[in-house]
Amino acid sequence: MTTLIKNGTIITATDTYRADILVKNGRVCEIGGEISKIANEIIDATGKWVLPGAVDAHTHLDVECDGMTTVDDFESATAAAAAGGTTTVIDYAEQVPGGTLAGALEKWREKAAGRSVVDYGFHIALSEVTPGILGEIPAMVAAGVTSFHARLDGWGERYIHDGQLLELFESARGAGAIVCLHAENGDIIRTYLGRLASEGKTSVRYLPEARPPEVEAQATARAISIAEMARAPIYLSGISSAHAIEKVKAARDRGQVVYAETSPHFLVLTSERYEDPDGVKYTCIPPLRPSWHADVLWKAISSGDIHSIGSDHRAFHYAGQKDLGKEDFTRAPRGFAGVQERVSLVHSAGVAAGRISPNRLVDLVSASPAKIFGLFPRKGTLAVGSDADMILFDPATEVTLSKATSLSRSDYTPYEGMNVRGAPWMVLQRGKVIARENKVHGRAGQGEFLPAARFSVP
Amino acid sequence: MTTLIKNGTIITATDTYRADILVKNGRVCEIGGEISKIANEIIDATGKWVLPGAVDAHTHLDVECDGMTTVDDFESATAAAAAGGTTTVIDYAEQVPGGTLAGALEKWREKAAGRSVVDYGFHIALSEVTPGILGEIPAMVAAGVTSFHARLDGWGERYIHDGQLLELFESARGAGAIVCLHAENGDIIRTYLGRLASEGKTSVRYLPEARPPEVEAQATARAISIAEMARAPIYLSGISSAHAIEKVKAARDRGQVVYAETSPHFLVLTSERYEDPDGVKYTCIPPLRPSWHADVLWKAISSGDIHSIGSDHRAFHYAGQKDLGKEDFTRAPRGFAGVQERVSLVHSAGVAAGRISPNRLVDLVSASPAKIFGLFPRKGTLAVGSDADMILFDPATEVTLSKATSLSRSDYTPYEGMNVRGAPWMVLQRGKVIARENKVHGRAGQGEFLPAARFSVP
Amino acid sequence: MTTLIKNGTIITATDTYRADILVKNGRVCEIGGEISKIANEIIDATGKWVLPGAVDAHTHLDVECDGMTTVDDFESATAAAAAGGTTTVIDYAEQVPGGTLAGALEKWREKAAGRSVVDYGFHIALSEVTPGILGEIPAMVAAGVTSFHARLDGWGERYIHDGQLLELFESARGAGAIVCLHAENGDIIRTYLGRLASEGKTSVRYLPEARPPEVEAQATARAISIAEMARAPIYLSGISSAHAIEKVKAARDRGQVVYAETSPHFLVLTSERYEDPDGVKYTCIPPLRPSWHADVLWKAISSGDIHSIGSDHRAFHYAGQKDLGKEDFTRAPRGFAGVQERVSLVHSAGVAAGRISPNRLVDLVSASPAKIFGLFPRKGTLAVGSDADMILFDPATEVTLSKATSLSRSDYTPYEGMNVRGAPWMVLQRGKVIARENKVHGRAGQGEFLPAARFSVP
Amino acid sequence: MTTLIKNGTIITATDTYRADILVKNGRVCEIGGEISKIANEIIDATGKWVLPGAVDAHTHLDVECDGMTTVDDFESATAAAAAGGTTTVIDYAEQVPGGTLAGALEKWREKAAGRSVVDYGFHIALSEVTPGILGEIPAMVAAGVTSFHARLDGWGERYIHDGQLLELFESARGAGAIVCLHAENGDIIRTYLGRLASEGKTSVRYLPEARPPEVEAQATARAISIAEMARAPIYLSGISSAHAIEKVKAARDRGQVVYAETSPHFLVLTSERYEDPDGVKYTCIPPLRPSWHADVLWKAISSGDIHSIGSDHRAFHYAGQKDLGKEDFTRAPRGFAGVQERVSLVHSAGVAAGRISPNRLVDLVSASPAKIFGLFPRKGTLAVGSDADMILFDPATEVTLSKATSLSRSDYTPYEGMNVRGAPWMVLQRGKVIARENKVHGRAGQGEFLPAARFSVP
Repeated sequence: MTTLIKNGTIITATDTYRADILVKNGRVCEIGGEISKIANEIIDATGKWVLPGAVDAHTHLDVECDGMTTVDDFESATAAAAAGGTTTVIDYAEQVPGGTLAGALEKWREKAAGRSVVDYGFHIALSEVTPGILGEIPAMVAAGVTSFHARLDGWGERYIHDGQLLELFESARGAGAIVCLHAENGDIIRTYLGRLASEGKTSVRYLPEARPPEVEAQATARAISIAEMARAPIYLSGISSAHAIEKVKAARDRGQVVYAETSPHFLVLTSERYEDPDGVKYTCIPPLRPSWHADVLWKAISSGDIHSIGSDHRAFHYAGQKDLGKEDFTRAPRGFAGVQERVSLVHSAGVAAGRISPNRLVDLVSASPAKIFGLFPRKGTLAVGSDADMILFDPATEVTLSKATSLSRSDYTPYEGMNVRGAPWMVLQRGKVIARENKVHGRAGQGEFLPAARFSVP
Repeated sequence: MTTLIKNGTIITATDTYRADILVKNGRVCEIGGEISKIANEIIDATGKWVLPGAVDAHTHLDVECDGMTTVDDFESATAAAAAGGTTTVIDYAEQVPGGTLAGALEKWREKAAGRSVVDYGFHIALSEVTPGILGEIPAMVAAGVTSFHARLDGWGERYIHDGQLLELFESARGAGAIVCLHAENGDIIRTYLGRLASEGKTSVRYLPEARPPEVEAQATARAISIAEMARAPIYLSGISSAHAIEKVKAARDRGQVVYAETSPHFLVLTSERYEDPDGVKYTCIPPLRPSWHADVLWKAISSGDIHSIGSDHRAFHYAGQKDLGKEDFTRAPRGFAGVQERVSLVHSAGVAAGRISPNRLVDLVSASPAKIFGLFPRKGTLAVGSDADMILFDPATEVTLSKATSLSRSDYTPYEGMNVRGAPWMVLQRGKVIARENKVHGRAGQGEFLPAARFSVP
Repeated sequence: MTTLIKNGTIITATDTYRADILVKNGRVCEIGGEISKIANEIIDATGKWVLPGAVDAHTHLDVECDGMTTVDDFESATAAAAAGGTTTVIDYAEQVPGGTLAGALEKWREKAAGRSVVDYGFHIALSEVTPGILGEIPAMVAAGVTSFHARLDGWGERYIHDGQLLELFESARGAGAIVCLHAENGDIIRTYLGRLASEGKTSVRYLPEARPPEVEAQATARAISIAEMARAPIYLSGISSAHAIEKVKAARDRGQVVYAETSPHFLVLTSERYEDPDGVKYTCIPPLRPSWHADVLWKAISSGDIHSIGSDHRAFHYAGQKDLGKEDFTRAPRGFAGVQERVSLVHSAGVAAGRISPNRLVDLVSASPAKIFGLFPRKGTLAVGSDADMILFDPATEVTLSKATSLSRSDYTPYEGMNVRGAPWMVLQRGKVIARENKVHGRAGQGEFLPAARFSVP
Repeated sequence: MTTLIKNGTIITATDTYRADILVKNGRVCEIGGEISKIANEIIDATGKWVLPGAVDAHTHLDVECDGMTTVDDFESATAAAAAGGTTTVIDYAEQVPGGTLAGALEKWREKAAGRSVVDYGFHIALSEVTPGILGEIPAMVAAGVTSFHARLDGWGERYIHDGQLLELFESARGAGAIVCLHAENGDIIRTYLGRLASEGKTSVRYLPEARPPEVEAQATARAISIAEMARAPIYLSGISSAHAIEKVKAARDRGQVVYAETSPHFLVLTSERYEDPDGVKYTCIPPLRPSWHADVLWKAISSGDIHSIGSDHRAFHYAGQKDLGKEDFTRAPRGFAGVQERVSLVHSAGVAAGRISPNRLVDLVSASPAKIFGLFPRKGTLAVGSDADMILFDPATEVTLSKATSLSRSDYTPYEGMNVRGAPWMVLQRGKVIARENKVHGRAGQGEFLPAARFSVP
């Protein structure tokens, strides 16, 4: 089975050039100035950019959260991903308290198998750090999971102590894995939530007061300092604020191996949304910030201090789920859909706005997450031997985002009415067209599990 | 004319993969997993890395300096370059006081034409900043020179005032060019030199006292602050010290577009050499530093705060030239040979020592300088359409550097006796083998002038 | 001759306590809980603060500037000073190009002798840095001048090169003196002024564009770095912006001996004034800044990074002098009156507003400038043996500043209509009442010249 | 009862002057150039410095620690203090788990009453942060305790969570108190201790590995960030390292109210002592550091980033106590004697070595701790109305410290054999001579309890 993509402009994290691509058995077989071979299928990409299929290293699919289940499972979410140009998701497999990592991985492989439209890998999200859990890490690495996530916004029984954190970093480093962290200070948040509740400040407009940037910066600095003691790499999932990115910069200036991820919503939405009547639609953690934080995040993207942009896709309905928080924002489940819109949003606010080059776009949404999480060069680039995952991207098209364009099962999109420039025209997974002009052609279950390689500094 | 390179591992700034490369008419025509076409020449690169030909953005060839003429002209230096894997040099064409930029460019094109073994572009080194000079910049950009170099270590008539510097940055930015700077504070150096002379401290062991790191850091900060006022990019040529790199980091943290270049000798040689009986062999500016500076430079390479490594090749004989400084180091001309050893030294001290990945090596010695100076993707990568400049590199070979291995006309090498790991096995320029196992096959004059594109942020 | 001040609250830079003070022959003779001795004069200071007479280390009296002569000479200005609680001024004696330091000192001693109401010392403001000038420094120190001022906002012939600056710092340090600097980058200012002029932007609203904070910060960093090379102390006169104070903090964090002075107008006036129809009244250099800079200056006062507040008194008439700049701000002479209002303004915006303690007020307006400039403990404190210069200060009184309350000869005050809390009730110079409730009792000529001691770190 | 001190040079944190002091009823009654009144006692202080009695804000007397009882109770320790010029100690009253603050205060008042030679105040050291404890703070403030100490080097049940810390800061601020912290990360220390034990690394030479500077810096940053959220002042007790002081500087640069205390042993002893056969004599927490840390601490003293020097006096015998740790350093109780040597050590290594002025000495060992902990101006200065606590100090005398000169009951001194310049000649407490040439004249029980005033920024 061969496919020939002709006349496109290939863009990787480094290169931009005009060439044809021949795909054979799902892999890039040949790249040439003009390939005249016979192929089963020929796609004319004239005027299009040919980008590596995007890698979304931050999704939460088919998961219980805050007492509710997300509306998107692997089938619906990866269909949305495919439409948006994302051909790989790295989902958070959740270890339940008392459970094993192996159990988490097995459960998540079941959730994905037979359902996922795109390829997938896993982080394992730890609910606790025990000797048993740490002991399982090498086996998980052998099984293809090389990133382990912990949350610093827990408290009480969910609180992770610094000694545990140190051992987690050391165990991960020893096994060839990397630790990912959600960095907000849970103990302070608990205190703030208690006060807001006691003062009757339960409207979503008070969400930013429960989780201010200082709380994020503090936990970010804490995590970085422990990683430094362990001489271990660290990946900060979901950096939202200038305060937190300042800590990342300071560590990188010292030469520490620190990676930071932000999300499209931190770049294009602001905390003003919480003043809206339906502001609860926008609850996420960390919360949205005032607009000047986005300026700082863009600068950090330019300077190379932010490496990856993940969607943090965690979709809920407004009716019956998010709107439970109308009177009390803590009752709304956290998060919203975004896996589909990620690439277009970053292109529009980044490349089209003159902030970053197309190569940097590829780096942020494909190459860097693939490298950091051990999927490169199978994913994240277009080179001979790589999986033939591609976005034939039209940088000039303009789209108005809306529920009508959204393929998530969620009954709303936080980007309703937003105009973006640039969208996938066609999306290929291992050489097969899985989406075209926002219609999904791929089928549930065709996605494959991607074992991750051990971490090494790119 | 076609050439087929088979079975190598292609390494670019981003990618590492096994593939064959078909070259046609001097350009990469096709890259494929297994190319079975008939070619005029077939090279088996089994076990070799296939790197883009290296780009040395910092050479001084066939030039008068400190009252003497360098021993290498374009013929001898580019032969040495070719042997070492460098297929492009960007040389400094010097505008003489009272002369024009056009005159400098014309003179340098004459020096190179018919002599250069490898391809070449030019920076123009300004000896003064006048309205006339600034007015010529757009024409130079149109003629293919998009980088203009100024020195901050001049004094008296050679002193460049901040107003002039501001206008230089603004003129360059307006014309699509970038300003390069040698950043040491000339006025302070003049003072220190005067003192050392009056105290009879003229042995080369006092060179570091004439040009301490503080003097470099001060000028670096000065240049960066003026570039910031002009909202212009800046390229710092020849950063040698922790003090200076700290200023670079601070500016990049603020989001400023600052590029820093260091040289191999700052990474592998130290100021202890000035204590040697023949210490004057090692005079260069900035001077060599104590070893801890190299540690900081490597960290800055890792963090992405140093972008480019240039040789600063400026070759002299020890006998009759450098040794004139035995009694008085200021009588020794500055600089030494290095264009040939650059790639191997960075591989050995960087990749083989576990400090950087092979991709980062390519970035530092090829891709980034090519991008910053408008030669990419013709140079700096291996992609369809790029010039077929390649190093078939053997990462495992071990070489002892010596005058015997050096192709510079200089009667010594500063790296005498140093063992390095990794060396070019074969070097191709536009598809033709120009060097093989340290023997040059290319002929003088086959190198072409490379007009540079306007600067844009990569 | 004895005077007894009873029942006041004595406040020094360190202490606050209730006591009586006995003055004999102009000096503090005794401080006691209840002094019952017979005195020639007894003053009941019940309910008043007894502060050391204030020291204004930044005045420009009876001087030509921008082609005009200030309206205040030593008589009028020091009368205003006395009314405002300032019993010592340190004025800038100006060395004229080609002239000597001795000549400057002689001329200024003549200007002051027989005219000054308060005591006085001198800085010498250098117009150039030559070997001859540097050679005079030790003699000037012997003559009681231990601070030498240079401007970094000159250009062309007035430009001071870094080598000269280094030698100035070293000469001063060697002689026991300190260098004061006006830190703005003259060369950049010249460029900006030229552009504004060519664009017809000559209204005073464009003054901030000619001298933006970046220009101040750049020169501040430059001066600090040269002082560091010289291992010499440095006093930055007239810091106005957050950008500049950031450079001061960085140097102090490294352990460098750096002192910063700001002025009351930078704390209570803002650049919005330049939008006023009579905005030219407010021209000064550096210019007034947007209000957030004042917040940063107050924080630097709290953290101990600003040490001294001087008035920069340089008075002109609006009619016939400042208003010459109505069409072209560069034709307005720089500066305005302020020696009288300084203490009250800092008390009102500082102590009364809860930002600083009364002790810190004394430190800023008396003790620190007296210490840095070698007048302590004769001036700057109330201790046995100190000159009996005192402000009997009423912290509770409220005053509306206006031309009617101003004793400067200037036909306006920049503080017109401003309400302040706290004012001197009575002011004593060497035990004699020289002002009372804004009326001057002292006579011209009673002020004495104060030879300064050599600099030492307090 | 009156005492007249004649002919001394009075030195406060600000002033230096020659004067006589008349003491009446234990307080400074009068300061005059020449006081000729009749007094019960006349002391001729010709050639001596008259310093305010020193305030040691960090002692641990008569307390159980690590399962042992300190060898010094209030009687022996305050005798040693008196001999060394310290006339006020602020001791840590320890709240026991489950106990009340009132109980701690009562118990410590009992320990001190009838025994203390010098005056005393208390911090209360919290063993836990509960609503009950926080609720007691206002009553303690009313009872004269305005500083509350917490340890961040606890773990398990002794671990203080950030939410608790936030509430502690807020409660203290609300009540007019300040929080003091021992800042080392207990959880990491526990981990390191466990590893060292398992590796058999129990010799005291491994102590620095259990508590490295990173562990101190991390906890310091943690505490500062939570204080910032609470907008509360913070006092860091026992800063030992460059790493930690860097965090203090950063916070002070932001304008935060942060005070740092170090101890003489961090300035004059180094971690090399742990290599000694009797290295266990020097165990303390944080531990001694390599010598370059002391250089950084001195710079921070100069720049005003360290405010106070306390002894951390916590005395044990070598025989039978410290030597229990010979095989396992964790079995040695922490700390050693130092209350007696503090003033002389800081004078010798600071003033006599040219690092600080005599005024700054007074600031560090008397004025600042008195101000921060609400005892000023009763203590910490020599002003009319202040307690007549004085050191008649001989700056020129030279002393060799040894067990023979030490008045602690401990069977050794960590300063054995060290030569110091400067020592108290005579020490007065409220006008009475309590020590003379290292002999104690004061009697147990003459010291008084000093209620502290509420905290306000000096």
